[in-house]
Amino acid sequence: MFLKTEKQWPLNAWYHAAWSHEITGNKPLARTFLNEDVVLFRDSEGNASALEDRCCHRATPLRLGDVVPEGLQCGYHGMTFNGSGECVKIPGQEKVPSYAKVRSYPIFERQEIIWIWMGDPELADEEQLLVDFPWNDDHENWPHIHDMYEIECNYMLLIDNLMDLTHIPYIHRNTIGGGNQQGQVDAKMDVSPKETGVHYIRWMESIVPPPTYVKGAGFEDGVLVDRWQEFEYVVPSTVIQWTGALEEGRNAMENREQNGGFNLRLYHGATPKTESSCYYFWTPLNGYKPRDSEATKVLHKEIAATFNEDLDFLESQQACMATTMDQLFVDIKHDSARIPARRAIENMIKRELSEKV
Amino acid sequence: MFLKTEKQWPLNAWYHAAWSHEITGNKPLARTFLNEDVVLFRDSEGNASALEDRCCHRATPLRLGDVVPEGLQCGYHGMTFNGSGECVKIPGQEKVPSYAKVRSYPIFERQEIIWIWMGDPELADEEQLLVDFPWNDDHENWPHIHDMYEIECNYMLLIDNLMDLTHIPYIHRNTIGGGNQQGQVDAKMDVSPKETGVHYIRWMESIVPPPTYVKGAGFEDGVLVDRWQEFEYVVPSTVIQWTGALEEGRNAMENREQNGGFNLRLYHGATPKTESSCYYFWTPLNGYKPRDSEATKVLHKEIAATFNEDLDFLESQQACMATTMDQLFVDIKHDSARIPARRAIENMIKRELSEKV
Amino acid sequence: MFLKTEKQWPLNAWYHAAWSHEITGNKPLARTFLNEDVVLFRDSEGNASALEDRCCHRATPLRLGDVVPEGLQCGYHGMTFNGSGECVKIPGQEKVPSYAKVRSYPIFERQEIIWIWMGDPELADEEQLLVDFPWNDDHENWPHIHDMYEIECNYMLLIDNLMDLTHIPYIHRNTIGGGNQQGQVDAKMDVSPKETGVHYIRWMESIVPPPTYVKGAGFEDGVLVDRWQEFEYVVPSTVIQWTGALEEGRNAMENREQNGGFNLRLYHGATPKTESSCYYFWTPLNGYKPRDSEATKVLHKEIAATFNEDLDFLESQQACMATTMDQLFVDIKHDSARIPARRAIENMIKRELSEKV
Repeated sequence: MFLKTEKQWPLNAWYHAAWSHEITGNKPLARTFLNEDVVLFRDSEGNASALEDRCCHRATPLRLGDVVPEGLQCGYHGMTFNGSGECVKIPGQEKVPSYAKVRSYPIFERQEIIWIWMGDPELADEEQLLVDFPWNDDHENWPHIHDMYEIECNYMLLIDNLMDLTHIPYIHRNTIGGGNQQGQVDAKMDVSPKETGVHYIRWMESIVPPPTYVKGAGFEDGVLVDRWQEFEYVVPSTVIQWTGALEEGRNAMENREQNGGFNLRLYHGATPKTESSCYYFWTPLNGYKPRDSEATKVLHKEIAATFNEDLDFLESQQACMATTMDQLFVDIKHDSARIPARRAIENMIKRELSEKV
Repeated sequence: MFLKTEKQWPLNAWYHAAWSHEITGNKPLARTFLNEDVVLFRDSEGNASALEDRCCHRATPLRLGDVVPEGLQCGYHGMTFNGSGECVKIPGQEKVPSYAKVRSYPIFERQEIIWIWMGDPELADEEQLLVDFPWNDDHENWPHIHDMYEIECNYMLLIDNLMDLTHIPYIHRNTIGGGNQQGQVDAKMDVSPKETGVHYIRWMESIVPPPTYVKGAGFEDGVLVDRWQEFEYVVPSTVIQWTGALEEGRNAMENREQNGGFNLRLYHGATPKTESSCYYFWTPLNGYKPRDSEATKVLHKEIAATFNEDLDFLESQQACMATTMDQLFVDIKHDSARIPARRAIENMIKRELSEKV
Repeated sequence: MFLKTEKQWPLNAWYHAAWSHEITGNKPLARTFLNEDVVLFRDSEGNASALEDRCCHRATPLRLGDVVPEGLQCGYHGMTFNGSGECVKIPGQEKVPSYAKVRSYPIFERQEIIWIWMGDPELADEEQLLVDFPWNDDHENWPHIHDMYEIECNYMLLIDNLMDLTHIPYIHRNTIGGGNQQGQVDAKMDVSPKETGVHYIRWMESIVPPPTYVKGAGFEDGVLVDRWQEFEYVVPSTVIQWTGALEEGRNAMENREQNGGFNLRLYHGATPKTESSCYYFWTPLNGYKPRDSEATKVLHKEIAATFNEDLDFLESQQACMATTMDQLFVDIKHDSARIPARRAIENMIKRELSEKV
């Protein structure tokens, strides 16, 4: 397995199930979370619901059905379930037995994200959502486009990727990692482990800005910048990012909140599908030209291209790791954020397993 | 597993292997029945034969070979087998040892169907063929086109589908199930369980005819019909259907054999390939415009489109059921024919298993 | 399994890993040998090297990396390994620990072939290479084009194919096996088993030349030829071939080294990828029109077409054999070279297994 724990994920946690805008209309949305097949839909009042993707009559997937005023109607023989999973209609008979029901999952919608709770519903307290990303609600100052990739890798390989940015001047040398390779490798790194994850900030002072930044902010030819990369991993599977650059001499290290230059926030959510696959929800928020909708589109396109460069690596690493977990793994200096991130998720899983005893 | 029995099918039974016209020419036809790879061909006298699809020399599939006057010739080194599976030629040597042979399977050809017996050949009595479908031989009054679909589902999921017609106004609402949904759900259902299967007839009186019927029979705009659906399941895997409609007031319930209106017979044969896949042999017989060959083509096309609507449901149901057989299944009122059909096949399997002891 | 031995191949042997020209430039070449993922590249001095295809940092496949002056650089975070598998650079840190290394495999390059040793490196003696094919180095008299096919079959099924040429008038009746089928089946066969494999020669006297030969050598219409097929299997997985034909009456049996007529050499190398797949390296050497480069191209194309005819047979035989190894296999007279070939490889494997005890 890919984590050193008996289980690969905590069950009792909120996971990113979908972007709000994805649950709409009269067709449900089917996804697999933590090995369970789930179907998402909105009831007639607009509340998002999540049910197991299996009609209790003859095991037909409910994803083939339709959203009707009473709830989600199975496409095969018309049995209909409300958002709590209770059967509210069986065509051809008047009585609906109380045992006719399917499992429902707690849902919590906030900041354009639909969160799902796959564990014990009794414990599904909204207070337990550790992620706060208010910029998602601020389209005026932080315009953004949502996206999602399905990746054939364990979700923590994606988190690992975000915890060790020395990969940028290698994998992404043609996009966000162009320019001075050694300067990027030698960035000053300040890591703060937390119980709920890890925070780090990397500074590259007086460095050539990468092509994506130049394209975005319009830095002049030959200008050097002070560049930062601030990341926080929040268990089980979110990473919040703020990166940017200001022209050298503008004292970026003292004050990053200046006009001009380049800066963006990025939300990353990696939800396990199976032990060897995940959904990667992401959105880059344009903080440098918020009134320029074309710039927001260009930013999204650039980031999409960058993440595409990662996919082959993540999936090949997954395939290789799956057959060689008993072989040597050599930790290096640049694992300084990745190691506490792993420790945080593994501790969370261990706590959950010990509580069950 | 998909049936509640230890085995998923009876071995000692006739199964639909192919349509007669499929076995022709100098190339054999390869199929898999009940997990065994079989190759079908006609000898020089026109008799259909079935052999295991494996040359006894070096395990080359015989399907790659050719039909020659002596029998079926392996395509690799030329060993040739007759319809009984005996090797009749080994190139390069004069003597053929008696142990050089492959398994052959009993075949019985009738009514345009080639039946195969996968069990004990000693028991392969033609009297045991429970299916009689004489209309296949009557091209003048019942013209028809044969077809076959390969479906990734247990054969009994296909039989289930034909035993519960409340699926028609849901899955097929754009073809044969259009019009009055509630009227079709509320059809009068008369079920007669038998030792060899189950018979049922459903009547929908004074109902709007579905688009397929209107297209076929030319019912006038606004006319209502009395519509019937008569089905018989015959173990292990055949369903014989007669459905139709006459204009309201023509006393269809007393006498269905009147000119005009719409009526068709349908032969359904579901032969297990593996526990999770089957061949679906079907042919709709045009009983309403037997002299109109264009109408026969249109009927075949309409039924093909209808069955295509079922495929996604059957294959998705199969995939879901395969991982959730231990979960709840809720029987409903409309399972009144499906349940005795399941009982008949399960009893047949149990009888066979107990006889072996 | 496909060989009657506990293991399917000897470990301590040289295997054909690649043609020399395939290892070039700044991108490594990834292949799988004997179930192990390997990456091949040339160092800055031009020496071919082979490493396990897994970075010891985070199990990223090294095939995604680049060849740099220091060695092979991992594409993810830049760790670099020399041809011996030692890590020579870790970006961001000065010290490289001695345990940072990956497995390297002995390589021996000769006669345009890169040989790899997957077993105990201590035993990797160049003296152990049993194959000598000097014609590969003689482009003037034996011009040729290299090729490789990946085949989904055990490597010994390919060797079997080359050991029983009665398949030629069946599988290849439209290419090299056209013409007199019975005459080819009845060829005179002279087999000499050896400890290191088996040698045989087949003579077909006074026979119609096959289309490929006519096309190649320009035999006149109606001419008959004396045709030979000389093959040697060398354990574990090479076959060296010399075949040709001279016009009847030119005493080919006494002296094959005459001008004119048709003759070619063929090198065949079958390297196991897994138990059920292999690489097939092959090159036909034009011995009949060595100064005619167009003839060399035509020869390659004809042989490619011929081998393509085998592929479906080999892969279908593999699939059939995989599920029926416990069933009957009937040896025939034409297995007279195949049986000693199998004995030689099985003895080699048994020797290796007994030495380990």
